[in-house]
Amino acid sequence: MGDFGFTLLKSDAGARLGRIGTGHGAIDTPAFMPVATQGTVKSLTPADLVAAGAQIVLANTYHLMLRPGHELIRELGGLHRFMGWDGPILTDSGGFQVFSLSKLRRIGEEGVEFRSHVDGSLRTLTPESCIVVQHALGVDVLHPLDECLAHPASAADTERSLALTQRWLVRAVAAHRAAGAPGALFGIVQGGVYETLRVRAVEDTCALDLPGYAIGGLAVGEPKPVLCEIAGLVAGRLPVDRPRYLMGVGKPPDLVEAVARGVDLFDCVLPTRNARNGQAFTADGPINIANARFARDPGPVDPDCPCEACRRFSRAYLRHLFGARELLVYRLLTLHNLTFYLGLMRRMREAVARGAFASFQSRFLERYGVESLRGTTDYTPADSEA
Amino acid sequence: MGDFGFTLLKSDAGARLGRIGTGHGAIDTPAFMPVATQGTVKSLTPADLVAAGAQIVLANTYHLMLRPGHELIRELGGLHRFMGWDGPILTDSGGFQVFSLSKLRRIGEEGVEFRSHVDGSLRTLTPESCIVVQHALGVDVLHPLDECLAHPASAADTERSLALTQRWLVRAVAAHRAAGAPGALFGIVQGGVYETLRVRAVEDTCALDLPGYAIGGLAVGEPKPVLCEIAGLVAGRLPVDRPRYLMGVGKPPDLVEAVARGVDLFDCVLPTRNARNGQAFTADGPINIANARFARDPGPVDPDCPCEACRRFSRAYLRHLFGARELLVYRLLTLHNLTFYLGLMRRMREAVARGAFASFQSRFLERYGVESLRGTTDYTPADSEA
Repeated sequence: MGDFGFTLLKSDAGARLGRIGTGHGAIDTPAFMPVATQGTVKSLTPADLVAAGAQIVLANTYHLMLRPGHELIRELGGLHRFMGWDGPILTDSGGFQVFSLSKLRRIGEEGVEFRSHVDGSLRTLTPESCIVVQHALGVDVLHPLDECLAHPASAADTERSLALTQRWLVRAVAAHRAAGAPGALFGIVQGGVYETLRVRAVEDTCALDLPGYAIGGLAVGEPKPVLCEIAGLVAGRLPVDRPRYLMGVGKPPDLVEAVARGVDLFDCVLPTRNARNGQAFTADGPINIANARFARDPGPVDPDCPCEACRRFSRAYLRHLFGARELLVYRLLTLHNLTFYLGLMRRMREAVARGAFASFQSRFLERYGVESLRGTTDYTPADSEA
Repeated sequence: MGDFGFTLLKSDAGARLGRIGTGHGAIDTPAFMPVATQGTVKSLTPADLVAAGAQIVLANTYHLMLRPGHELIRELGGLHRFMGWDGPILTDSGGFQVFSLSKLRRIGEEGVEFRSHVDGSLRTLTPESCIVVQHALGVDVLHPLDECLAHPASAADTERSLALTQRWLVRAVAAHRAAGAPGALFGIVQGGVYETLRVRAVEDTCALDLPGYAIGGLAVGEPKPVLCEIAGLVAGRLPVDRPRYLMGVGKPPDLVEAVARGVDLFDCVLPTRNARNGQAFTADGPINIANARFARDPGPVDPDCPCEACRRFSRAYLRHLFGARELLVYRLLTLHNLTFYLGLMRRMREAVARGAFASFQSRFLERYGVESLRGTTDYTPADSEA
């Protein structure tokens, strides 16, 4: 794991203020990772990401392995140089995409066999080859191949799947350690919506003493209170001195709720994907720029936002660009949404630093127009752990 | 015409170094105008345009009239404020788009009736309403409604069309002068490929004593030598103390050839449209980034180029983005191509300033891989006029 390390600086009302060190710079947590699926955050340059406040991006092992290929990226000096981003990069395992995007052919003890969604070629991914791909990319944080079930899944299916994921994890850890390559391999805690499976998964995963832990298998269709409950349950049982990453979450209120339950790291396609559908996030909730009420609106998307889109352009202009399908609007709304998400994380860090997270949480959720889920779950273990 | 003015600073080997003053700043000529059809240069911000070296942009009267509507833009403070560009803006008349994009219903003495390509609504455009639209946009340079014929057109059709265009011009000039609104109305010289008609058109148009003159009806399908011949013929007969704008031209060698014939202003969709098809312009000719030979090429598109795309990213990365249809590549290649075009104009201005345009011209065309057309025409009137 080389230069990787996590320092917990402060806890407040369940939320944690921390700092992750990597060979490519530090990440202040709680942190949100913009999604650079194919080695680019859609429409933005690395300089835009820095301007928006990003300290780390997430890339997809599955996509880059298929196109342009990890060996090509290795030849060209690794993913950082290839995409022109010199901050930390985290990759998922590719497992989620194998199950959601490809034509899955066979899943077995050895690994998965699937047809590429790019060219239809037959490919395999094993716990070991998945590590090889991520070493070729040269990323700072790696993830092991796992099986990600959709919701709902029966307890029996979930238990079988979890056991396979755990056996794959042991092989991934062995492959990573044997290679002696840089990069921190996180463990992924699966177990669906079943508390006993989640508890067992935490124990088995943490037994491997990994530098960080991801909470997987959520935001796959389960109700929001269940997401919060399971995330809180798992986060509360993970070691205090390691970062906790809630995969694929979420909407702004979800981030606040999860931070309140002790989660440190997030990624989600919502701010970038929804930008391309015209949705802009604001402190008062999301708006859709296509709405006719913005046709003659001279004000910015969000008067409090420091991004280029809000400093330079009106809602009326952005609505015109969106109606005319102009490329610039996708870029401007993406920049805005990421600025909003990353600004939200900064505000949460500042709230923890001054011991005011609980009041921040209730004020944010009230203004955003949602009720806190804090009272809807028996689990608030994040409150008791730091 | 208010703040508008043109100063011819120097002539050299037919090429002219000049400066246009407008109420929104100066334009050094020869100049290229990036095309902002719908009020945006596709994928770029105004700040990008400044970085690329743009001093003026072109917008389309036809498109903005239909969407979002010129009245809306007027309400929001005019096109400069609407699109966030505070430099000069030139609009074409919309005539070209009426004839090429819309379902033309009827052309008559009064004007044109057509169906909008946006929503199918029945619309009219007259010489007078065309001026009203451009006044609402608040642009610095306006153009009169004209009829633009495709090539080939018979002499009789061209003569009939030219006569209509001239009658419309007289009405446009009257409407503009009666309104007393700011903005400089250029005349458009039509006449197809027929020298006698072009000569007559120059005389009739210049008789109106306008602040600048556009050469229209070229780059519509005629052979390249004919384009150069007619452009040179017209430019050579236009008054020395007014800017000359060659509409819709062209490829980099065309710009050099036309500057050598005394043209001052250009616009063309090539650098922006072709960027979105993967074509990048370089001093050694265009390349297509999709070419397999770039798959592992770590070098920039153009090592001499100062743009962000060339400073930060490899051909291999851009090729990957293009293959994956990533929005960022359209933006980066657009930025590069405009930087190349605008840099070419700057180099031409510098060559004229030091009295070295002829050698610049031959060196540029040789390296670009095309032969000069200077010898292929009897007309080099630009040489004799300044």
